[in-house]
Amino acid sequence: MHSLRFTAESSSNGVVERDFTVGGVPGVLWSPAPEAADRAPLVLMAHGGGNHKKHPAMAGRARLLTAGCGFHVAVIDAPGHGDRPRTAHDEAEIAELFRARAAGEPEGPIVVRYNDHLARLAVPEYRALLAALQKLPEIGADGPVGFWGINMGTAIGVPFVAAEPRITAAVFGQHWPDALAEQAKRISIPIEFDLQWDDEHISREEGLALFDAFASKEKSLHVNAGAHKELPRFEADSAVRFFARHLGRAVTPQA
Amino acid sequence: MHSLRFTAESSSNGVVERDFTVGGVPGVLWSPAPEAADRAPLVLMAHGGGNHKKHPAMAGRARLLTAGCGFHVAVIDAPGHGDRPRTAHDEAEIAELFRARAAGEPEGPIVVRYNDHLARLAVPEYRALLAALQKLPEIGADGPVGFWGINMGTAIGVPFVAAEPRITAAVFGQHWPDALAEQAKRISIPIEFDLQWDDEHISREEGLALFDAFASKEKSLHVNAGAHKELPRFEADSAVRFFARHLGRAVTPQA
Repeated sequence: MHSLRFTAESSSNGVVERDFTVGGVPGVLWSPAPEAADRAPLVLMAHGGGNHKKHPAMAGRARLLTAGCGFHVAVIDAPGHGDRPRTAHDEAEIAELFRARAAGEPEGPIVVRYNDHLARLAVPEYRALLAALQKLPEIGADGPVGFWGINMGTAIGVPFVAAEPRITAAVFGQHWPDALAEQAKRISIPIEFDLQWDDEHISREEGLALFDAFASKEKSLHVNAGAHKELPRFEADSAVRFFARHLGRAVTPQA
Repeated sequence: MHSLRFTAESSSNGVVERDFTVGGVPGVLWSPAPEAADRAPLVLMAHGGGNHKKHPAMAGRARLLTAGCGFHVAVIDAPGHGDRPRTAHDEAEIAELFRARAAGEPEGPIVVRYNDHLARLAVPEYRALLAALQKLPEIGADGPVGFWGINMGTAIGVPFVAAEPRITAAVFGQHWPDALAEQAKRISIPIEFDLQWDDEHISREEGLALFDAFASKEKSLHVNAGAHKELPRFEADSAVRFFARHLGRAVTPQA
């Protein structure tokens, strides 16, 4: 069992940011000010393909959850991403993706295959992350835990949540069903799922098929007009309210 | 041009409720306390089939909009509903609906046909309502106007909004596309659209087809697991935030 090693700490606008490694994997933990942090709910996030743990999308969502709801929020770099080295396999898959994109060929088959590969590496890392976080006195092992990951974050999150009974609510979205639908059938916690109606990579049928696969009695699909990268910002606010509803905190609006 | 005749007034928890008639059609106007009511945005609502202007779903949504956002909210009884008389045609269609339901036959063809009939009567009534409301000094003709109607409220609302350039944002949902898709193609304002994933009357394909038909650049579809009558309460909160975003007010959470 790996434990969390903190490597840096800073604080801004009432949010404490601590860099850490767990089993050699670099991550970041955002927390409310110490007096509000005790046994606060935890949300694990996973970043999108080509991004990293402190991408503005991650930092922005974390701020909404931490400053807005008083949650702890943690994210780690995916294999081959952020501060982690790329393997020859990573380099080959990325080159193949760029080649397909330049040739105007569908990206889906490559992304599905590569994300599935990364998810198999990342799921045990996320399980170790959760175990290590729950040993921190300000988090503990009893509180509710959410998961939030879109795109590659969903490719990692669906098998992770299917294998992890400690996750009690999850936000997913924007992925092909191929490698994920069978595992989604094993997930029955409340979920919110985002899909872009005019996604140039993921067809409507593919997006709807993945949403449909979840066994959850409470599941909400949010479809918005627009292309793959045009997920509206108000869906982040919606996800925060979803976690506040299920992890048991009120939302304080952030400017 | 008919004008609004107020027939009763009461006040509760900072919300003023005024009954009225306009051209003989009975309605209700909910407003914030007078000091907050001046030139506040207006939301018109339409109730569902078999219900009426003061059904708890209407009063509950109005309270969220009025107390929560400081909006004016108005709704009128649909033809053959609430305090309005039923015609022989109404009675025959309702009998046919009950017969089909008892026989286990699909309700859709009857509801589509009857709602289309009611909408043809109701659209000019809603246009007269809006004109009369905009003559009230506390509303005026310059402010933004929203529309909110699900089920039969969508059957009335889609042709109304297609014909009414003064409506700037609308919430629709849970209806068949048959009589509405062509008119939805003429609507380009922001919309939010609700659909139940396990609706026993409206198929997924039918619900998605109506959402798809809107020409709006900003449109959001909210799908929830559950049967026709199980639309979650949090979708009312979502609709209120949608109107707050588009009609320009903040939301104050209501207990």
